[in-house]
Amino acid sequence: MTTILTNAIVVTMDDALAVHEFGWVRVDGTTITALGAGRPPDVPGAEIVDCAGDIVMPGMVNAHCHMAMSVFRGLGEDVDDRLYRYILPLERKFVSPEMVRAGSALSALEMIQGGVTTVADMYYFETEVGDVCAEAGLRAIVGQTLADFDPPDHRNFDEGFGRVEELVDRYKDHPLVTPSIAPHAPYSTGRDVMARIAQWSADHPQVPVQMHLAESTLEVKWALDTHGKSTVTVTAESGLLKPNLICAHCLQLDDNDIRLMSEHQVCVVTNPRSNGKAGRGIAPVEKMRNAGLPAGIGSDGAMSGNTLDLFSQFAPVSMFAKLLAGSRKPLPAVDVIRMATIEGARALSLNLKTGSLEVGKQADLIRINLSAPRLHPMYDPYSALVFAAMPSDVTDTMVAGRWLMRNGQVQTLDVGKAVSDAVGIAAQFKSEMARIDGQ
Amino acid sequence: MTTILTNAIVVTMDDALAVHEFGWVRVDGTTITALGAGRPPDVPGAEIVDCAGDIVMPGMVNAHCHMAMSVFRGLGEDVDDRLYRYILPLERKFVSPEMVRAGSALSALEMIQGGVTTVADMYYFETEVGDVCAEAGLRAIVGQTLADFDPPDHRNFDEGFGRVEELVDRYKDHPLVTPSIAPHAPYSTGRDVMARIAQWSADHPQVPVQMHLAESTLEVKWALDTHGKSTVTVTAESGLLKPNLICAHCLQLDDNDIRLMSEHQVCVVTNPRSNGKAGRGIAPVEKMRNAGLPAGIGSDGAMSGNTLDLFSQFAPVSMFAKLLAGSRKPLPAVDVIRMATIEGARALSLNLKTGSLEVGKQADLIRINLSAPRLHPMYDPYSALVFAAMPSDVTDTMVAGRWLMRNGQVQTLDVGKAVSDAVGIAAQFKSEMARIDGQ
Repeated sequence: MTTILTNAIVVTMDDALAVHEFGWVRVDGTTITALGAGRPPDVPGAEIVDCAGDIVMPGMVNAHCHMAMSVFRGLGEDVDDRLYRYILPLERKFVSPEMVRAGSALSALEMIQGGVTTVADMYYFETEVGDVCAEAGLRAIVGQTLADFDPPDHRNFDEGFGRVEELVDRYKDHPLVTPSIAPHAPYSTGRDVMARIAQWSADHPQVPVQMHLAESTLEVKWALDTHGKSTVTVTAESGLLKPNLICAHCLQLDDNDIRLMSEHQVCVVTNPRSNGKAGRGIAPVEKMRNAGLPAGIGSDGAMSGNTLDLFSQFAPVSMFAKLLAGSRKPLPAVDVIRMATIEGARALSLNLKTGSLEVGKQADLIRINLSAPRLHPMYDPYSALVFAAMPSDVTDTMVAGRWLMRNGQVQTLDVGKAVSDAVGIAAQFKSEMARIDGQ
Repeated sequence: MTTILTNAIVVTMDDALAVHEFGWVRVDGTTITALGAGRPPDVPGAEIVDCAGDIVMPGMVNAHCHMAMSVFRGLGEDVDDRLYRYILPLERKFVSPEMVRAGSALSALEMIQGGVTTVADMYYFETEVGDVCAEAGLRAIVGQTLADFDPPDHRNFDEGFGRVEELVDRYKDHPLVTPSIAPHAPYSTGRDVMARIAQWSADHPQVPVQMHLAESTLEVKWALDTHGKSTVTVTAESGLLKPNLICAHCLQLDDNDIRLMSEHQVCVVTNPRSNGKAGRGIAPVEKMRNAGLPAGIGSDGAMSGNTLDLFSQFAPVSMFAKLLAGSRKPLPAVDVIRMATIEGARALSLNLKTGSLEVGKQADLIRINLSAPRLHPMYDPYSALVFAAMPSDVTDTMVAGRWLMRNGQVQTLDVGKAVSDAVGIAAQFKSEMARIDGQ
């Protein structure tokens, strides 16, 4: 099956940053087999998609998410102690395979609509997340979380490892879904268990590791009080800092931490809206990138960042870099789009498969309609994508040659069911919150 | 002519923050004559609009804009010296009544689509902006800018005052358009001319004054070097600090400045995306509001903030307050919506006419469709509006009882013409930029 997208502004995000005006992309099966500008090849029987001057670009990489948590979206907004007051009690009471499936389906839907084609997730009952992504057709890294705070799906780390093994067995050979192990954070795993995970990881080099790192001042205090060192140093000593480690948040870092992370070639993900909304601080994204760390952009869970597209993160990630430097210059728009595509893919070690439009790569791409007046005039497509485009401009989403959304219609999920399942769970949460508030 | 909007979540933004589920709003002519929950009144001949469970809320107030500058959108993005390198030369060469009209029409279009019903504008050839807003049906304050840097429409302040008088004559009795005088900034007006404007303003108490204030460290330096005082103090000494002064940006303020501004009961506008993108800093919004200053939200010109809807400003204004405080608590979502509606109207002294849905006020309202999965579940409508809603969710926009957009179709402007006129001007700009870069 051959599909040729024609008459598009093809933003490739290849090394040369080639942009083909009046461009075309040829897809055979799951793979990009040719692309260029001008007259597309004449392939008998091919489906021709006239993109009418729209942008075609790589699908975006949401490099840190908790998909199941969309059922918490906006819950306890602005409440300082909402984690302990509402969220942990609700998680203990309600997190189940069914809830994880419902929240993940709503999130998959939103991401497909918003132009995300690859997501890195970590939560509980993660086989369910893998199942939802596989059905929805999303490329995904699904990470089983391990933590010591009586999480919903394991009573101790041995049980947690059992969940990880189950996940790896299920998805080790899947074309779209990659299993992952996800120590929650240094303070909620502890140095010894981190060392155990590092050992397990050495035996499973194909399994990426995901972890929250240096997210809060409380974590910094834990590391200092417990080990007299920075949280990054403690993590390094555990053996976890390796090229297959994906570190989310990365807020509370000093230059020595960044040097350590760079020496061990870890990958990082910034979650600007989540961090900003929590008042937690601004990640030193330019410092990390200048130290050679591949940096992706994540939405975090919808409880923290509310929306799961990357457009919502673009202005924040850009403004934060410019505010840190006191100048308009840092992190130019093209670098934001890099982070959202090829650099995000590199941070997830998926850059040989996705993140740019190049021959031989998987056909993970999106089409962006340019009819909105706010997108004009357009002096530079990267600026328009970063500062004016919105998820509602995405009309088509393809992963591995399969249309997940076509002309604004999601093909692989039932929109009505996804929304109503999530609303049903939220009704239970609201009752429980009323009970908590009435205590 | 009676119109009744029914079956809506009516978010009134009145003093009691009443929200009517299954609510209705009655509009007679230009005015809201009744509203409530449950069964709407039976009015023979009335047009009934079934809102199908959507949100109906006050139209938003974009309290600081340069509408004509949409033709510069994204130009020289990330270039530190773009103001002197590109923008001022382009303004001197190309700003004309025709260019102002074209840019303003594109901006009016975008604002109507994005749910803005009132805008405070300042630029050159401002009678053109007034004409565009009157035709588009937007409520507007249009401010003729006065500046000493050889601006496009006056060679000296006497000529500038002439432009102001012409604007006031044209719009002094208009139902939607309010003329305004707009000293560009303290450093580009000077203390003596500010004093002359203050005197003129005392003679014209109905004419609001708009000014950029404390926007940059360069301005702070100017005030210190020239007068040995803060820029707010210099402005206070000129007599300009009065309740009809609308101060935009307000970044570089100390506690004494805020006290001065509070004593003189000025109004303020924050432009978070513009300020963030320029790396200029974070406005002390909570400090100003706690000092009793009504605070609106502005997009600034599209050259600085790129988009002109207020949804794009909500996450930034919220995150910035939370980052300044290091906590999730400050500036809760409901306060962001206050600033975007009734408080913004108060900052423009238009709160008796607009900014909330109350009997006797002008029918300035918008309808927000809730079908997008990212808006669910909804624990709190304010959180959903601030952190998940987008301009594409706005389907209907009404000002003074007139539909400016109905079912997503703008009624008062030609979309194709507005975009193509702006793109034509951008082509001229691109040629001139190529010439500048080639020098």
